Amino acid sequence: MVEAVRKPRGRPVKSSSEPDGATRDRLIDATGELMANRGSVDVTFADIAKATELNPALISYYFGNKAGLMMALLRRVLGESLTNLEDLAREDVPPEEKLRVHIHGLISTYFRYPYINPLIHQLVIDEPQTFGPMIAEEFSRRAAGIQKHILDEGVAAGRFRDVDPLNFYFHIVGACDQFFHGRYQMRHIFGIANIDERRELDYADYLADSLVRGLAT
Amino acid sequence: MVEAVRKPRGRPVKSSSEPDGATRDRLIDATGELMANRGSVDVTFADIAKATELNPALISYYFGNKAGLMMALLRRVLGESLTNLEDLAREDVPPEEKLRVHIHGLISTYFRYPYINPLIHQLVIDEPQTFGPMIAEEFSRRAAGIQKHILDEGVAAGRFRDVDPLNFYFHIVGACDQFFHGRYQMRHIFGIANIDERRELDYADYLADSLVRGLAT
Repeated sequence: MVEAVRKPRGRPVKSSSEPDGATRDRLIDATGELMANRGSVDVTFADIAKATELNPALISYYFGNKAGLMMALLRRVLGESLTNLEDLAREDVPPEEKLRVHIHGLISTYFRYPYINPLIHQLVIDEPQTFGPMIAEEFSRRAAGIQKHILDEGVAAGRFRDVDPLNFYFHIVGACDQFFHGRYQMRHIFGIANIDERRELDYADYLADSLVRGLAT
Repeated sequence: MVEAVRKPRGRPVKSSSEPDGATRDRLIDATGELMANRGSVDVTFADIAKATELNPALISYYFGNKAGLMMALLRRVLGESLTNLEDLAREDVPPEEKLRVHIHGLISTYFRYPYINPLIHQLVIDEPQTFGPMIAEEFSRRAAGIQKHILDEGVAAGRFRDVDPLNFYFHIVGACDQFFHGRYQMRHIFGIANIDERRELDYADYLADSLVRGLAT
């Protein structure tokens, strides 16, 4: 198992049976799994090499450095979720329903990939000038765009009152984030050690309901 | 100016004209001002001693260590705001109005003391086992208690529908927090470099409105 990891020099060693894309995907998947299992974003190249039985030099080859790998992981998990929500925003569905699916989508993404926020935090702490703007442009802008589209449709249909998309953005993102952040509050005020799927769904239902009522004309 | 700071040994040197409480208050005030002016919670005993012209040993004398001083500062700014909100919750005012004042109170506290969240974050990162539970018990529990009181009153008066106070807590706290956290989003998506008082009030109005509508029967 450790053999491939120990190959010391020369061209990166990878499995000869899989194309480049598949190797790259395996490295990203393994990184996400390690972070999810450990409950921490503190994962080294050596950890990933061991888990994938691939040479650590491959990680540098594909991603440059650890920040590059982290961004690739964010692009995978957040990018996929945002693409689904963008597709939905274009469909012929009432704006209330789109908003409900948007909220459920954001919350279930945070639930499935609990490392998203710590990962973003780590990147922005390490290199604020690079990753602050990059993450805002690549991910936040898309989420804000989807929300503005839904708001505009709802206003045009006479079903939503007109609210500032900026206020709406911070309201939604804050309410979705906080549920997975405040673990000491969850435990010490409400006596809940872990968020299970039932509670996650209950919160998404509550929040979607409150936001739709808050917008209704 | 630096003279008092340089006194090296013996009993802490403090101004002989002020009682203990006043010296303690001056140290807390100066710490908050330094953090606000620098936009950072990275403030040393030497910085505070210099700003107050007091001996750094006084800080140890009153607060034990830096974490003790930080907790004292949180107790000052958050404790005062929570006491006001608790007083309000007991008054004879419609529940919608109490909720609006609660939201405005939370947001204006974050606005006036922008170091609150970074300070909490720092304490919890440094000593999670101590400060995670302590902050949840001392501050979050009180905020959640005020919210539950307002919700119960609104339901009893037939003006609010029945929602889970846990969901309501994370919704409010997340939405209030995020507005002051997402500065890259604020700048790169919405083109706003700084949150001024007009924008802060606009957000508090929007959020209170959305929450009250979200609860209305």
